[in-house]
Amino acid sequence: MTKLPQTGTSIFSKMTSLANQYDAINLSQGFPNFPIDKRLVEILSQTATEDIHQYMPSAGYPPLLEKIASLLLQSYQRKITPEKEILITAGATQGIYVTLQALIAFNDEVIILDPSYDSYEPAVLLANGKPIRIPLDENFCPNWNLIAKNCSDKTKMIIINNPHNPSGNILNEADFIALEFLISKFPNLIVLSDEVYEYITFEEKHLSAHTRKSLRNHCITVSSFGKTFHITGWKIGYLVAPEHLMKEIKKVHQFLVFSVNSIAQVAINHYLDEVELPGLGAFYQEKRDYFRKLLHPTPFELLPCKGTYFQVASYHSISNENDVQFCENLVKNQGVAAIPLSPFYKNNTDLKMIRFCFAKDNETLEKAAQKLLSL
Amino acid sequence: MTKLPQTGTSIFSKMTSLANQYDAINLSQGFPNFPIDKRLVEILSQTATEDIHQYMPSAGYPPLLEKIASLLLQSYQRKITPEKEILITAGATQGIYVTLQALIAFNDEVIILDPSYDSYEPAVLLANGKPIRIPLDENFCPNWNLIAKNCSDKTKMIIINNPHNPSGNILNEADFIALEFLISKFPNLIVLSDEVYEYITFEEKHLSAHTRKSLRNHCITVSSFGKTFHITGWKIGYLVAPEHLMKEIKKVHQFLVFSVNSIAQVAINHYLDEVELPGLGAFYQEKRDYFRKLLHPTPFELLPCKGTYFQVASYHSISNENDVQFCENLVKNQGVAAIPLSPFYKNNTDLKMIRFCFAKDNETLEKAAQKLLSL
Ligand SMILES: CSCCC(=O)C(=O)O
Ligand SMILES: CSCCC(=O)C(=O)O
Repeated sequence: MTKLPQTGTSIFSKMTSLANQYDAINLSQGFPNFPIDKRLVEILSQTATEDIHQYMPSAGYPPLLEKIASLLLQSYQRKITPEKEILITAGATQGIYVTLQALIAFNDEVIILDPSYDSYEPAVLLANGKPIRIPLDENFCPNWNLIAKNCSDKTKMIIINNPHNPSGNILNEADFIALEFLISKFPNLIVLSDEVYEYITFEEKHLSAHTRKSLRNHCITVSSFGKTFHITGWKIGYLVAPEHLMKEIKKVHQFLVFSVNSIAQVAINHYLDEVELPGLGAFYQEKRDYFRKLLHPTPFELLPCKGTYFQVASYHSISNENDVQFCENLVKNQGVAAIPLSPFYKNNTDLKMIRFCFAKDNETLEKAAQKLLSL
Repeated sequence: MTKLPQTGTSIFSKMTSLANQYDAINLSQGFPNFPIDKRLVEILSQTATEDIHQYMPSAGYPPLLEKIASLLLQSYQRKITPEKEILITAGATQGIYVTLQALIAFNDEVIILDPSYDSYEPAVLLANGKPIRIPLDENFCPNWNLIAKNCSDKTKMIIINNPHNPSGNILNEADFIALEFLISKFPNLIVLSDEVYEYITFEEKHLSAHTRKSLRNHCITVSSFGKTFHITGWKIGYLVAPEHLMKEIKKVHQFLVFSVNSIAQVAINHYLDEVELPGLGAFYQEKRDYFRKLLHPTPFELLPCKGTYFQVASYHSISNENDVQFCENLVKNQGVAAIPLSPFYKNNTDLKMIRFCFAKDNETLEKAAQKLLSL
């Protein structure tokens, strides 16, 4: 008896441990390798001395909920009620998981776009839902006609990821108009919008699902302080959802984890008093541009990257290996770890593409590019 | 559509927020109110400056896994393989939840002793299992004959809690002999042993399920640094399980939460270099004795307390109200919050008993007792 017979160890764990084993430069799993803001370290050290070592309320540290609500006021142009519409989670992955556990019942269909982050499908399966995989088009954009064709009264939810991991694509106005039209035809549909890279967009601005009036009552967004403040290890994320959905999510959350790490919540709350978020896009845009320039002399073909800290590259002119083999050999022979794209696909579709994480200091990016020149 | 139609907000959240609302002394939800060890605060402040802010491995921080294994070497008298048999969880509640999600499939029966901690039943239901509630006897001891009678090939798991919340009872040698006999008759049975109060026992020593040779291959223990180091807010627990079960648990864990807060894991690892655990029993035994002495002049009848930081008291000579009403009025009229026992029972059995948490500084215990004298 096994719960996820087709699932093994996550590709992110596999590639990071292979990178460590071969002492390779790790551009695989998505996390920054540069130091975090000194001020955040100071705040964290100071927070340790406060009286904050016992259980937080299950929904989260109330001042942090307030702070998030005022943050959202700017982007959503409306007031969120912190104690009713926000939930702090043990990272975005737990936020996605608890949402599915709470809202998906036996045989409910959940649309997952292909390729997608690797936790969506197992989380749907563990909630007894039925994942319906709909391919993104060749530019990693949703094909809304195809999605609509696959919707029925059985369709309970669609999971979108904007900006999109692994491709770096972002949704635009036309996508939201199509999504709103879909909701008008299937008014019970719930939108789970994974927006953990919301602050990491480049030429175009990120549009949150919550900013669309007609989606408000249907949509749950997933955010991650880990991505936004370069602290993926802290595991603090949050959900925003309308009250009727949040009520169900909180009910499950209290028995799944009860509450979330107190120190990290309080430190982030203090930090939010001081920090400005919009700088993040410019910071990573510079990294993206630099990394793309560094890779230019290599035989990789670079795909567009509109958001996230991931750069997808095609190696079709380099090798015929499948992408998992290619990545393994890249670690062993070039000393650089990347993520193959096939684990993001239901049927492990192999497009001869891999994903590099460029959330690294320049020296690391330079060294990696140097090693890739030997290809 | 709702996932847990019979479940509302956890009694612990309810009573703590009622206590706050009425500015009452909070002896309800189980958490210490005294400052944590100064040395742990120092270590945590120092840990903030280390390079530990990115994702931990999904199973946990490797040095912490090692440290736990050596800790267990003493009590288990055998070597645990850290990377195969230990998993760090976002608190014990998440440990229990992920175990059930991983190991319980549709209609698998899970024996839950009545009364029990409130997360067990919802966690079984969300895994699609079938909770089978078996009453503990009038001394809150398992009735092994009754348990055996309710076992069949459909029984996948039994959840035990030792020391037991809310009663403070602990399992003895005879209990384990009976459990071993049960396993000999139902060799596929898994034992989920919630041992979060393992270091808080008094006259009798705690026996871990893992110390029993014939249970080893069947049992998963749940531990909590939150309870052991007075840091319930940190949300760091761990599971110990044989490899074949741990493999399944880890597979689900990676998609449920991926990994657990890095700062807390590293700080606990440092602290474990310095601290000795066995002191905890004596510390809380003194508190128990003091609290019982303080309550002696009140009309409450105190039940035995062999472990945990909870004292159960009967109010049958005071009032005919049901225990939830009694607790609400105790907050409003006496200014003391306790936990009614009925939410621990499947059918909300009302025994006119409530639970006080005595993990509080002496002044708080004195003030509470003073207020209870007016009853
Ligand atoms: C939870 S590990 C994966 C991190 C990440 O988001 C990615 O690399 O895609
Ligand atoms: C997770 S809140 C409950 C704390 C506790 O273990 C208890 O009060 O019983």
